[in-house]
Amino acid sequence: MNPLAISFDDVAAAHERIASVAHRTPVLTSTTADTLAGAQLFFKCENLQRVGAFKFRGAYNAIAQFDPDQRTRGVVAYSSGNHAQGIALAARLLGVPAVIVMPHDAQATKLAATRAYGAEVVLYDRYTEDRDAIGKGLAEARGLTLIPPYDHPHIMAGQGTVAKELIEEVGSLDVLIAPLGGGGLLSGCATAAKAMSPGCIVIGVEPEAGNDGQRSFRSGQIVRIETPKTIADGAQTQFLGQHTFPVIQQRVDDILTVTDGELVEAMRFFAGRMKMIVEPTGCLAAAVAFGQQLDLKGKRVGVVLSGGNVDLGNFAKLLQAA
Amino acid sequence: MNPLAISFDDVAAAHERIASVAHRTPVLTSTTADTLAGAQLFFKCENLQRVGAFKFRGAYNAIAQFDPDQRTRGVVAYSSGNHAQGIALAARLLGVPAVIVMPHDAQATKLAATRAYGAEVVLYDRYTEDRDAIGKGLAEARGLTLIPPYDHPHIMAGQGTVAKELIEEVGSLDVLIAPLGGGGLLSGCATAAKAMSPGCIVIGVEPEAGNDGQRSFRSGQIVRIETPKTIADGAQTQFLGQHTFPVIQQRVDDILTVTDGELVEAMRFFAGRMKMIVEPTGCLAAAVAFGQQLDLKGKRVGVVLSGGNVDLGNFAKLLQAA
Repeated sequence: MNPLAISFDDVAAAHERIASVAHRTPVLTSTTADTLAGAQLFFKCENLQRVGAFKFRGAYNAIAQFDPDQRTRGVVAYSSGNHAQGIALAARLLGVPAVIVMPHDAQATKLAATRAYGAEVVLYDRYTEDRDAIGKGLAEARGLTLIPPYDHPHIMAGQGTVAKELIEEVGSLDVLIAPLGGGGLLSGCATAAKAMSPGCIVIGVEPEAGNDGQRSFRSGQIVRIETPKTIADGAQTQFLGQHTFPVIQQRVDDILTVTDGELVEAMRFFAGRMKMIVEPTGCLAAAVAFGQQLDLKGKRVGVVLSGGNVDLGNFAKLLQAA
Repeated sequence: MNPLAISFDDVAAAHERIASVAHRTPVLTSTTADTLAGAQLFFKCENLQRVGAFKFRGAYNAIAQFDPDQRTRGVVAYSSGNHAQGIALAARLLGVPAVIVMPHDAQATKLAATRAYGAEVVLYDRYTEDRDAIGKGLAEARGLTLIPPYDHPHIMAGQGTVAKELIEEVGSLDVLIAPLGGGGLLSGCATAAKAMSPGCIVIGVEPEAGNDGQRSFRSGQIVRIETPKTIADGAQTQFLGQHTFPVIQQRVDDILTVTDGELVEAMRFFAGRMKMIVEPTGCLAAAVAFGQQLDLKGKRVGVVLSGGNVDLGNFAKLLQAA
């Protein structure tokens, strides 16, 4: 059997690489949230991270390990979301050229933000073209290094610094709950939590419509699904990664799902009571903490809020809808 | 000449009183904001304070100094806003009965929140009744101690802990900018800043429509105005206090004003880029930092974001309007 893709040492090394450039995001608490959950909740606020999401951590950790030739040639990534901006900013800070493959109908603000970080944007038609093939083609033709959004040990180790910082700040946890898309964040955080807080139960959370991770976890094989319909656009991945899945199998205790309605409720809670904007995907873990699926009574629970990038028009509509 | 109402020692003593119950709110930074301002900005996030605003600090500091008889009898306060909730929560934590005089047409959510903190709410008609008289009447009839929203040394000292924490965390500042309503926050913060960071320029900011503080500061006498029309509802005070004004005269360097349009722009910036909800009043200082009134080039600037309590429906409308 192959060894797992990352160990806690990799997370610790990633933390040293990113510490001077990533925000050490605040851990916030709320008496109202604690009452709601019957537990002591510690919210790790990656919505307040640079580029508005944890993705910057892994991106920087990956590009910082390029050799001189890779740095000169540049990095390529495909993403319509937070990974694009994470790579673009990390590349700029490290003086590495970046090419981002984005769908032609991506939000104008996201295109503009990615370009503002100095990246070259290559558009593709998401209905007729394959972004993976385009990314690989660019990588080959121009000698760029392709950094995938989650299935890469350097990405996983970088994302694990979220849990490392959280546990460093608040001490040991009984439970850690984190969102699950492709598994970069969850695998990294589980690796940190099991090493730093032995006995900590680690839970991943997916949108109900896209429960490939739960099915994979329970069946022991990677399950592939169609792109799920959910407002949690950061968790619309169709399958776990070759690197992330074995780590999740070994270090995660269970995977749960929540509905879009529960995500909206959590978003409203954060806006109304904690004065923060958390994107739907960022609310996955909190929706479990506020719900009845786990017995959290009296426990110390870490809750990862993974990002805050939601179009403000959509956000306003979601707030008003309830 | 009478001595000023508070010294730095009072702020330091207040900080000891509140440290175990108030949130030590995060100080956040944003590269985008720094670029916009041409300066290094440190945002002290009192929107992330308990009850969503700095008001909890002064309220707790005041009630914590009640003698046993005062504690048994209780506290009374009048406010339609953040002071009400600050007093209600502080009183509950200290086991002191609280009566809050609120307008009969106050937002239902604010009434509910105040009652949820265990306070007795007394409603009055803001068009025909005088809340000051009602508060004083209740105080006399029931032996309650009246705590005014800003013009009280214990309130001022408590609010000064905002600047104390900020400077403790980031070091000395060239400029500190804070909102100005009745002057509790500004007088306290100026007292802390001048003691901890000698040479720090302290600036208060009012809504343009309610520039009584600026006129008072420049004329040397307290100027009274009609209730100003502005979205900065926390700065609709009509005059500075007998205690706050002399401190502001002595320790503040200037008072500036911004328009409601500038406040909305700042709100949108915080929502879109920093993923936080800051109420209009909370944006006063930031609007100056983002504008052209001060030469902040290359300076280290503290910016107090005083609160985040805005009705989510209104917030959504403001976001969509631009």
